Amino acid sequence: MNASDTRTAILDTAVELASVRGLEELSIGGLASTVKMSKSGLFAHFGSKQELQLATVAEAWEIFESEVLLEPTFGRQDVLAGLLERWLSFYEREVFAGGCFFVLSAVELANRQDAVSKALVDAIDRQLAALEAAVRSAIESGELPARKDPGQTAFALHSVLINADSLFQVRHDRAVFDDARATIGELLAEPPRPRRSTSTVP
Amino acid sequence: MNASDTRTAILDTAVELASVRGLEELSIGGLASTVKMSKSGLFAHFGSKQELQLATVAEAWEIFESEVLLEPTFGRQDVLAGLLERWLSFYEREVFAGGCFFVLSAVELANRQDAVSKALVDAIDRQLAALEAAVRSAIESGELPARKDPGQTAFALHSVLINADSLFQVRHDRAVFDDARATIGELLAEPPRPRRSTSTVP
Repeated sequence: MNASDTRTAILDTAVELASVRGLEELSIGGLASTVKMSKSGLFAHFGSKQELQLATVAEAWEIFESEVLLEPTFGRQDVLAGLLERWLSFYEREVFAGGCFFVLSAVELANRQDAVSKALVDAIDRQLAALEAAVRSAIESGELPARKDPGQTAFALHSVLINADSLFQVRHDRAVFDDARATIGELLAEPPRPRRSTSTVP
Repeated sequence: MNASDTRTAILDTAVELASVRGLEELSIGGLASTVKMSKSGLFAHFGSKQELQLATVAEAWEIFESEVLLEPTFGRQDVLAGLLERWLSFYEREVFAGGCFFVLSAVELANRQDAVSKALVDAIDRQLAALEAAVRSAIESGELPARKDPGQTAFALHSVLINADSLFQVRHDRAVFDDARATIGELLAEPPRPRRSTSTVP
């Protein structure tokens, strides 16, 4: 392997460790023993725990982006449906062994305001922006009604995706993905009729 | 303060630390320096890091339950709406300074399968059960149409609540609660009409 391949192989292990144990648990010493390299060898690649964490977030984003976001969509009708299906499949296949850690790690490190925390917030902003762009494209193509609020719909879809992954990691029950798909179907349907006034008749 | 009050005061600090820095960061040594007690004094209360973590999860649940779940609801029409409003308000007021950590910590510790991890999964199961019970009650009282799937609706509402808290902790923008309320409104509305067939006309 050349140096770049070695770095990528190390980082793929780092992404898995961060996914299973948490980004904050990631240390050069811990990673060195997992990839069976010397600590000084890993220091040559990353220099510090923070650099390692930043490189791990960047590698995780690259994997997520290539699996979920970067599909040829030009002229396609089902841009939004395709994006959501790839996103759910990414979680179902457990591409990250312990689940997608952008949101979890961002909340955990929210009070730190450092470069790692900023990289995680950037990743979430890009997730929401990708969803919002797909919603806008679906409105333009007539797949979604024009009355849908793109920002709010992106938040709603993001909530369902992230929580499906979290609950699957915690409860190990794939039925959560059925609930996620049914909820997405509701959220992308025609705007509902106004709520009925409450009635005392059961 | 008697011993029980002292224990509760220590645990309230532990809940805040766990909320801001993560449950796994919670140690008897770290907590001792925050509450300005000796480590041996804290050991007398909790005995081990795991006992401290379990007591912290139990205290956090008690706070969440008393603020969000335990309201007089008998004979009320708006059981579900009231529950959701109290739940969002709990996050808006940042009763837990760093956000609600049941789901985050459960995912982080999911691979451990120990008593702490089990206590966190129990908390999530009780959150989902409370939502599902309120949905069933709303269906029975006619507030929600009978066609709503209580389990799926509970998952959808849980997703919106948890993600609103997470994104608020990360982005510090209260607009996320407007998105959450609008999404809840959509999810509790009449079942939407079937999705329109796609059209190429924008």
